[in-house]
Amino acid sequence: MHPYLIDWRDRRKGKALCVALPANVEEVSRTMKVAAEEGQPVFPLGGNTGLCYGGVPESPADDKPGIVISLQRMKQIREFDAAANIVTVDAGVILADLHEKSKPYKRQFPLYLGSEGSAQIGGLISTNAGGTGVVKYGPMRDLVCGIEVVLADGRILSDLEGLKKNNTGYDLKHLFIGAEGTLGIVTGAALRLHPENTNDAHAWVSVDSPETAVRLFTEFQDKCGPYIEAFELVSGTEIDAVVRHIDRIRVPFDTVPDWSLMIELTATDPSVDLNGIFEEVLGENLENGSVLDAFIASNAQQAEQIWHVRHSVTEANKLEGMGLVHDVAVRVSKVPAFIARAKEVTAEKFPMATPLLVNHLGDGNVHYILMFPHDYWNQLSDPEQVMHDVQSCVHDIAASFGGTFSAEHGVGRKLTDELERLCDPLRYELMIGIKKSLDPENRMNPGVLFRNLTTGC
Amino acid sequence: MHPYLIDWRDRRKGKALCVALPANVEEVSRTMKVAAEEGQPVFPLGGNTGLCYGGVPESPADDKPGIVISLQRMKQIREFDAAANIVTVDAGVILADLHEKSKPYKRQFPLYLGSEGSAQIGGLISTNAGGTGVVKYGPMRDLVCGIEVVLADGRILSDLEGLKKNNTGYDLKHLFIGAEGTLGIVTGAALRLHPENTNDAHAWVSVDSPETAVRLFTEFQDKCGPYIEAFELVSGTEIDAVVRHIDRIRVPFDTVPDWSLMIELTATDPSVDLNGIFEEVLGENLENGSVLDAFIASNAQQAEQIWHVRHSVTEANKLEGMGLVHDVAVRVSKVPAFIARAKEVTAEKFPMATPLLVNHLGDGNVHYILMFPHDYWNQLSDPEQVMHDVQSCVHDIAASFGGTFSAEHGVGRKLTDELERLCDPLRYELMIGIKKSLDPENRMNPGVLFRNLTTGC
Ligand SMILES: Cc1cc2nc3c(=O)[nH]c(=O)nc-3n(C[C@H](O)[C@H](O)[C@H](O)COP(=O)(O)OP(=O)(O)OC[C@H]3O[C@@H](n4cnc5c(N)ncnc54)[C@H](O)[C@@H]3O)c2cc1C
Ligand SMILES: Cc1cc2nc3c(=O)[nH]c(=O)nc-3n(C[C@H](O)[C@H](O)[C@H](O)COP(=O)(O)OP(=O)(O)OC[C@H]3O[C@@H](n4cnc5c(N)ncnc54)[C@H](O)[C@@H]3O)c2cc1C
Repeated sequence: MHPYLIDWRDRRKGKALCVALPANVEEVSRTMKVAAEEGQPVFPLGGNTGLCYGGVPESPADDKPGIVISLQRMKQIREFDAAANIVTVDAGVILADLHEKSKPYKRQFPLYLGSEGSAQIGGLISTNAGGTGVVKYGPMRDLVCGIEVVLADGRILSDLEGLKKNNTGYDLKHLFIGAEGTLGIVTGAALRLHPENTNDAHAWVSVDSPETAVRLFTEFQDKCGPYIEAFELVSGTEIDAVVRHIDRIRVPFDTVPDWSLMIELTATDPSVDLNGIFEEVLGENLENGSVLDAFIASNAQQAEQIWHVRHSVTEANKLEGMGLVHDVAVRVSKVPAFIARAKEVTAEKFPMATPLLVNHLGDGNVHYILMFPHDYWNQLSDPEQVMHDVQSCVHDIAASFGGTFSAEHGVGRKLTDELERLCDPLRYELMIGIKKSLDPENRMNPGVLFRNLTTGC
Repeated sequence: MHPYLIDWRDRRKGKALCVALPANVEEVSRTMKVAAEEGQPVFPLGGNTGLCYGGVPESPADDKPGIVISLQRMKQIREFDAAANIVTVDAGVILADLHEKSKPYKRQFPLYLGSEGSAQIGGLISTNAGGTGVVKYGPMRDLVCGIEVVLADGRILSDLEGLKKNNTGYDLKHLFIGAEGTLGIVTGAALRLHPENTNDAHAWVSVDSPETAVRLFTEFQDKCGPYIEAFELVSGTEIDAVVRHIDRIRVPFDTVPDWSLMIELTATDPSVDLNGIFEEVLGENLENGSVLDAFIASNAQQAEQIWHVRHSVTEANKLEGMGLVHDVAVRVSKVPAFIARAKEVTAEKFPMATPLLVNHLGDGNVHYILMFPHDYWNQLSDPEQVMHDVQSCVHDIAASFGGTFSAEHGVGRKLTDELERLCDPLRYELMIGIKKSLDPENRMNPGVLFRNLTTGC
């Protein structure tokens, strides 16, 4: 049972009575009915790539260790409907497989993230996963048009028609999206497909400040909003780290820019002159001095060079030192003020750390990474406490700008304290009301999202 | 008080203790607290353009007639944030005013419908309104990124940041969107803006069947999915009615087509050759015979001629006879089979009626109108019963294709029986659980959505 009890980074281990591997929704339903009869908690597990320990089984009651339900055997693509642009899948389908299988239909399922080779549709729905395409296509929530869920008592709630219009009462599917397995087990989904892109262009732009970056984002919105596929802002400190540790890195400027914008434009229409748009917008801004330098990829290899830098960030940071990652988001218009304030506060409180910034700027999503030198970190007497202090500090600043402490990664078991601390108390109360309404015995992933609910909440 | 108690078509009148006209969210909150203390039901009212009597106050208890809360004084546009593409508004803002005020920012709020001169943002959110842009921009649900609501007990739940990414528990806003005032009063919203279109093209295409229409929809999806702004399918019977009753109608073909596709393409990029796309896709299909004839507008006046026909449907039908409108939706791929079956069944059961079809084909939304001659209708002994029989018949056929009996217009007080009859019983039970969790005394718009909840549900 070991691999089903432990998170993928080997950091946290749970226990369980058994692991169930159902092959279809009826088997999930029967398993859930047995669990209900026995009063056992249930722990849904997808590809186990989550970053917040939501997939680790930890029962609140020693005498009821609970059942892990893994969807790994539920891998059927049930139906492709190209006219309706809908694909219906089992929740255990792996994202990369869905990408592959969509190609013959000239459609894409536009969710792209580092874990796509393992993450399952059910897990992606339950964490409302994002990725690099969010600025254009939205997160998972915007790509789900119907779901099939097994409730705590084993009953099956199913609406896989994925109607574009249906105004007959409350839209329940949105409750299950992002619920991290606390309201039911997602067993199937109707997903929205998009046309394939046949046209793309890539640029690396050196700008003087996040303010300029946001202004350029607005200009690109005005000019060609629907073509923006990625709009990433990376600090010079982060690029420096990548250059130091990773092979085959080419920076197409004389010096590493203070702020790098990496932009991708895509279109379904091959006749659109995307490089021409780059030249026009960037040309004007080079002239008026807001853009310091710009590199437009003139072939696929140069494009790959740009994104190789962006994708090397995680690996470089591991080698660079002890990086504490914060996945915060504010409105895109508030990103510059947030960054300025966070740098000011953390420089004062944690002078040993360097801030490295990797922002999905188009979504207002800032990965604010405080990098501590290994030497310094290793001699700390209570590193847990420092980690905790840094986290509260950054989260508080985000909150003061109306932002969130978890943009993409969810709450899981890791951030339940932060949810309790930072969530509007009224919203928290209403969420518990909904949890009670759907899972009155608190048997669905107990301990995830809510720290203190006891059985029979 | 009269205008606040009656629906806009003068068909149904309610009563109330008083009408409150709050000027801001605090006044709504205080009014709701008084209502809670007094145990009075509350009836939210927007622009009173709803089609299902959801705005008519009808208390279940004679001794507690309840309070109408009209948002007509809450008309502030609170903030335009062009970088974040978000506008924050009071819920009483009228849609047409928002359209007007967005123009100087070179942004559009892309919800367009016949009632835009009166309908309010709060009402549009509460009915999850659609319109002609749904195929491109989605319905209201896809355009709301944050809301402010006053709950039954007067407390204010507010999240107007409109973050693009925020994974910290259940997304409550989706419960209030489309809830028709049964869970709280929407007092403010953060809405998603889109770039303005600077480029458009229009065509009227004669096709032999709904099957061909769906196949063409797929081809346009493949070729230029993101440009499709309207994709309407209208039956020859409907065009005939328009030609008979409306002035200045020009049909650009020798005879009225059996099936007319009216297509609009739009783009933000003025350099895209939209007419060229029409010529390419339609040219191929003219050659292979699927398209019988096609008219591409070569100027704004010709475009206006096409849409004048489409927009004259309601007026023509009033003159034509007694038209029973059904607002059903199925998946776009199932539209042809649904239409074939509905025509077969209604021809047999209601041979006096002619089916007129006006379909937002791109959304799978079929307005299936059964047109009875005035003479016939006026001599019926029990027209209510016939109306009811026709309605059940059409709704049952939609249901047999996995479709819905209310695509756009909601349930209100008009279709509560149909909701009880056709909704999955498990979904119905869960919706009542949520209603109880948020409005335990059933004081928010009692009688709307759910027929049989009594006070203290
Ligand atoms: C290298 C890497 C890169 C990543 N990049 C991103 C990124 O760019 N953006 C982003 O948003 N996230 C990212 N993630 C994290 C992301 O949350 C996961 O990749 C994914 O969404 C989880 O899917 P999973 O199938 O692995 O779920 P798991 O890890 O198995 O589970 C995650 C949570 O969902 C629940 N769950 C799983 N399946 C179901 C189900 N069928 N029904 C109900 N509940 C279920 C679990 O109980 C748990 O609470 C990344 C992770 C890695 C390792
Ligand atoms: C000519 C015409 C054309 C139309 N075309 C379309 C169309 O193309 N597509 C479409 O979807 N609909 C259409 N409709 C109907 C559509 O439902 C309404 O136009 C609109 O959505 C209702 O807004 P309103 O402000 O008038 O709400 P109202 O009619 O006042 O109320 C509608 C419902 O919402 C509730 N409500 C209103 N305001 C609030 C609030 N602030 N908080 C909580 N609850 C509230 C009411 O109690 C009621 O249940 C059309 C109507 C007309 C008259």
